[in-house]
Amino acid sequence: MSGYHVAIVGATGLVGRTILQVLQERDFPIKKLTLLASSRSAGSTVEFKGESYSVQEATPASFKGVDFAFFSAGGGVSEKLAPAAAQSGAVVIDNSSAFRLDPEVPLVVPEVNPEDAKKHKGIIANPNCSTIQMVVALNPLHQAAGLKRVVVSTYQAVSGAGHRAIQGLENESRAVLEGREPEKNTIPHRGAARYHQIAFNVVPQIDVFDEDDYCKEEMKMIKETRKIMNLPELAITATTVRVPVSFGHSESVNVELNNPLPPSKAKEILKKSAGIVVVDNPSQLEYPMPVMSKGKDEVFVGRIRVDRSVPHGLNLWVVADNIRKGAATNSVQIAELLA
Amino acid sequence: MSGYHVAIVGATGLVGRTILQVLQERDFPIKKLTLLASSRSAGSTVEFKGESYSVQEATPASFKGVDFAFFSAGGGVSEKLAPAAAQSGAVVIDNSSAFRLDPEVPLVVPEVNPEDAKKHKGIIANPNCSTIQMVVALNPLHQAAGLKRVVVSTYQAVSGAGHRAIQGLENESRAVLEGREPEKNTIPHRGAARYHQIAFNVVPQIDVFDEDDYCKEEMKMIKETRKIMNLPELAITATTVRVPVSFGHSESVNVELNNPLPPSKAKEILKKSAGIVVVDNPSQLEYPMPVMSKGKDEVFVGRIRVDRSVPHGLNLWVVADNIRKGAATNSVQIAELLA
Repeated sequence: MSGYHVAIVGATGLVGRTILQVLQERDFPIKKLTLLASSRSAGSTVEFKGESYSVQEATPASFKGVDFAFFSAGGGVSEKLAPAAAQSGAVVIDNSSAFRLDPEVPLVVPEVNPEDAKKHKGIIANPNCSTIQMVVALNPLHQAAGLKRVVVSTYQAVSGAGHRAIQGLENESRAVLEGREPEKNTIPHRGAARYHQIAFNVVPQIDVFDEDDYCKEEMKMIKETRKIMNLPELAITATTVRVPVSFGHSESVNVELNNPLPPSKAKEILKKSAGIVVVDNPSQLEYPMPVMSKGKDEVFVGRIRVDRSVPHGLNLWVVADNIRKGAATNSVQIAELLA
Repeated sequence: MSGYHVAIVGATGLVGRTILQVLQERDFPIKKLTLLASSRSAGSTVEFKGESYSVQEATPASFKGVDFAFFSAGGGVSEKLAPAAAQSGAVVIDNSSAFRLDPEVPLVVPEVNPEDAKKHKGIIANPNCSTIQMVVALNPLHQAAGLKRVVVSTYQAVSGAGHRAIQGLENESRAVLEGREPEKNTIPHRGAARYHQIAFNVVPQIDVFDEDDYCKEEMKMIKETRKIMNLPELAITATTVRVPVSFGHSESVNVELNNPLPPSKAKEILKKSAGIVVVDNPSQLEYPMPVMSKGKDEVFVGRIRVDRSVPHGLNLWVVADNIRKGAATNSVQIAELLA
């Protein structure tokens, strides 16, 4: 049987399970599958192509003979085990933020910088979900007219915080609708000093706070975009916000270009670009929305308009399924570049 | 009994009822109260200070002896009846967009341009909800360092679309939680060619589409901000988005100033400004959110940070109750300027 020995670390999590689904959908050539997780989840079983797999505890010895190791068990696990997996000869594709800004580690979005994948030294980082969908939309515009400045505000789904947060949003919503005080225990992030209501509310914090009073998600969007697009000096600022949506991140992206690019031309370019579906028909009230992105691999772009407040300005509205293109699908696409 | 004869047109609507509540809370001197509405709502009764008032059909003859007439029954009613009310000697305070950009009509936010109220010729316009809260936050920064450019993205509550939309969000949410297909009939706006799900979704359209593929809410924010702040050439762009929240609009506001203004100084200035509460304590996970704004008259500002992508850049997060400061409270404050 030809194909690769694939391991998934964090196989019982939301992203891990979706990686399995995407591997199956895209018919990635697998000859052996090793499912790994923390000791807490070890022993549970997961289905793949009709077969039942037992999940084993991930240890440094788990990666013997593995060709591709997908990691989605958090930064701590990646730091501990990814180097061991790479040393065993596996190509690690890491969903955590542990190695993303490491100059030795390529940070790859296949539509933007596929060539960087080949430069890996055993570990390739998968970018942050909100970064991936934005750079897919920005790159064709940059190629056409040169990016000068980006101002982005996000509308992010709770699934970015895992299974627990989806359940949390549902539980809180039921409580509010029934006139009960909602029990808050998922947002802004696991282990936070305090929790905020997310049902019928909006929370302007994702991940912990970092330098300049930016939250870490905002700094990820800034720094990862610069690295992926190979624009180390790109002028970019971000405000990242959690909204009561289960799946699908939305982004209001304001772009200043170096050269003229009328909206009609921008639309034409985006329509022809890999991984993008343009949904932009105001007269029919058609534009991207999270509900339409669920389960899809494409990045949806609409509300493409001139911004007259600046020379060569454009506004875009960018939506994608944060668990698929924002995590699982992008990871599998990276593996496909090397398979 | 001293005081004014006050009329409310649209007394049974969400804003009309809130105007009554605000008049009572602020002890506006009323000697006579006339409650008016369309023929559809005429005949119903509304309570004020323990007394029951019968709602009459609004006609051009309804305004005899009226000192202040608050209009919140839509642009069509204002166009038809506000001039008659003004001719009868009433000062009209109009919540619709009918007269906002009329050069003969002042557009007033008491914290920003109270002096304009005195220049009225019978009609004063109350600005759009999303504009009001933004200019309250922008004006002190403009006074301190000069506004150069504004990029705003909004997160707007469904109550901006009235009682029906609040009920719609609740009904849709229940359906989704129970696994049923939600019945969609309120968003993006009444009478739309098609409706979108708003429960657990985000809809990047508010009001109908207008020039340059901007929706009307976006053009209102642009044009009304210029008029209120008396900055006819202000560089400003907007993206307005409906989120599944009942009360409270949030705004991610990116500001470019003419002169340096470090975030610490901006905070200090905003803290001292009328109508603003600064909630900005990242280490305690404290920032403005719609749930905390409900029923409040202040504009809440937080996430005040440097934007290093441009000289003299700042990011702000601005939240207010769209039915109170965004409509009812601002209208009553305008009347107080003239009372």
